[in-house]
Amino acid sequence: MINKLCIIGVGLIGGSLARALREKGYCNNIVGASRSASHLQKAVDLGVIDSYSTDLQEAVIGADVIIVCVPLGAMEMVFTKIKDVITPDTIITDVGSSKQCVVDAAQRAFGEIPANLIPGHPIAGTEKSGVEASFAELFQRRKVIITPLPQNNPDQVAKIEQMWRQTGAEVCQMSVEHHDEVLAATSHLPHVLAFGIVDTLAKMDAQQEIFEYAAGGFRDFTRIASSDPVMWRDICINNRDAILKVMRNYISDMESMVGLIENSDGEAIKAIFEDAKAIRDKFNTMLQG
Amino acid sequence: MINKLCIIGVGLIGGSLARALREKGYCNNIVGASRSASHLQKAVDLGVIDSYSTDLQEAVIGADVIIVCVPLGAMEMVFTKIKDVITPDTIITDVGSSKQCVVDAAQRAFGEIPANLIPGHPIAGTEKSGVEASFAELFQRRKVIITPLPQNNPDQVAKIEQMWRQTGAEVCQMSVEHHDEVLAATSHLPHVLAFGIVDTLAKMDAQQEIFEYAAGGFRDFTRIASSDPVMWRDICINNRDAILKVMRNYISDMESMVGLIENSDGEAIKAIFEDAKAIRDKFNTMLQG
Repeated sequence: MINKLCIIGVGLIGGSLARALREKGYCNNIVGASRSASHLQKAVDLGVIDSYSTDLQEAVIGADVIIVCVPLGAMEMVFTKIKDVITPDTIITDVGSSKQCVVDAAQRAFGEIPANLIPGHPIAGTEKSGVEASFAELFQRRKVIITPLPQNNPDQVAKIEQMWRQTGAEVCQMSVEHHDEVLAATSHLPHVLAFGIVDTLAKMDAQQEIFEYAAGGFRDFTRIASSDPVMWRDICINNRDAILKVMRNYISDMESMVGLIENSDGEAIKAIFEDAKAIRDKFNTMLQG
Repeated sequence: MINKLCIIGVGLIGGSLARALREKGYCNNIVGASRSASHLQKAVDLGVIDSYSTDLQEAVIGADVIIVCVPLGAMEMVFTKIKDVITPDTIITDVGSSKQCVVDAAQRAFGEIPANLIPGHPIAGTEKSGVEASFAELFQRRKVIITPLPQNNPDQVAKIEQMWRQTGAEVCQMSVEHHDEVLAATSHLPHVLAFGIVDTLAKMDAQQEIFEYAAGGFRDFTRIASSDPVMWRDICINNRDAILKVMRNYISDMESMVGLIENSDGEAIKAIFEDAKAIRDKFNTMLQG
């Protein structure tokens, strides 16, 4: 049980977490915090949070758990604002898509890595954003990755894991570095590529028709290009090295593919497509199983 | 009305067309043809076609309309086999994803471009293939592009357009060249990129975990990598120049993006993401409207 949960940034993720924990009766009091009183009031009106404050210090006082759900670029500012009013008993966690940068932001804000900072990342979301898009089932059967730090207290780690399990998520642990590498491949790269293809096609002469004649394949392929630009800009900058590594691999593979198509090398093209299909079909089975 | 319709290649597209036309009672007799008697027998068992023959010449005799639903690489062989038994009154159409190559295949097979060849392309499909995956509603509210040739008889063009309208599709016309350019961008490029990313990630050390921690965004982004490898190999080879052009544009844009991320140029990255999101959101509204 959590007595007071403070959610900083009540959008899709923070709002969905609040809804899920409320449904379970797992928190006595959920307080929202951000810069926008109108957004927070909407969250109260929707029944997502109990109360709010636009003063971060006021919001976090007395919280058992503070969960920071802001774009990566705003983490340091949040940590700096709250650092003077939190005690070692207050657990700070987050939902950022890249973890090393959160640890670095805390190091800069606190002057050291706080022992009560337990970085986390729910592998869930939609292309929509905002508290209006939040729903209690978002984390059901999704993975939540906790990346514990050497200085963490195991009881506090267990408490955060327990919180996430209430939402129906499967909780697992990974090192910060490994998390950032895996997520660069599986999430960050696809998002950059999807934004990229829409940009490339939009610059073509036949732009209007291109989108007019696009079908279901294109719709699914580019769905994530409707994601929040600020959040994804921050991810690109904050997980830069891991993203650049997979992007360069991908570009190099696509240059090889250009060569195969130039040479009409049907056998090699088919071999790559067959392997990809086999792996993608297996992944589908995994997701459904 | 069509008296005898011959479908060469009774898979997802041919099977769905047959189902849709049967529901409308638009054909007296639907005959399937391909090399595989077992596939064709399955199509009969499913009630998709009335009868079949593995002898293409036998299958097409007396047909008002022959629709060729085979991979692009098999078009010339089909044309060559049927050329001696069809009359100018028999309309030949197809569903190939690239149109110039179909015209070229006909030119080689017939020694000239037949006046009764009316190339077509329904912009519909799923990542599944085979007659088992076919369904009558596949073409509803989808676009079917007809690319009429100068030598076509307008009455025959109208007859093919009428046939497609029975399926609930919206029929439109485009030049062969323009079709190939638009489809390279909107369909062929995304497929190559989706096969490509699965291939790139599969070669990484953390392969197993990458797929384990992939979420909904990745699932949608790579859904089309489950498509038929032979069909897509044929498309790459048969719409080579148009595909290479958009692939090179895309790779060049992604190289620029690598530069922006290297330089942590947040403003420029955000501008591209915002533009892409605006266009993608508009496309979504277009699709729903």
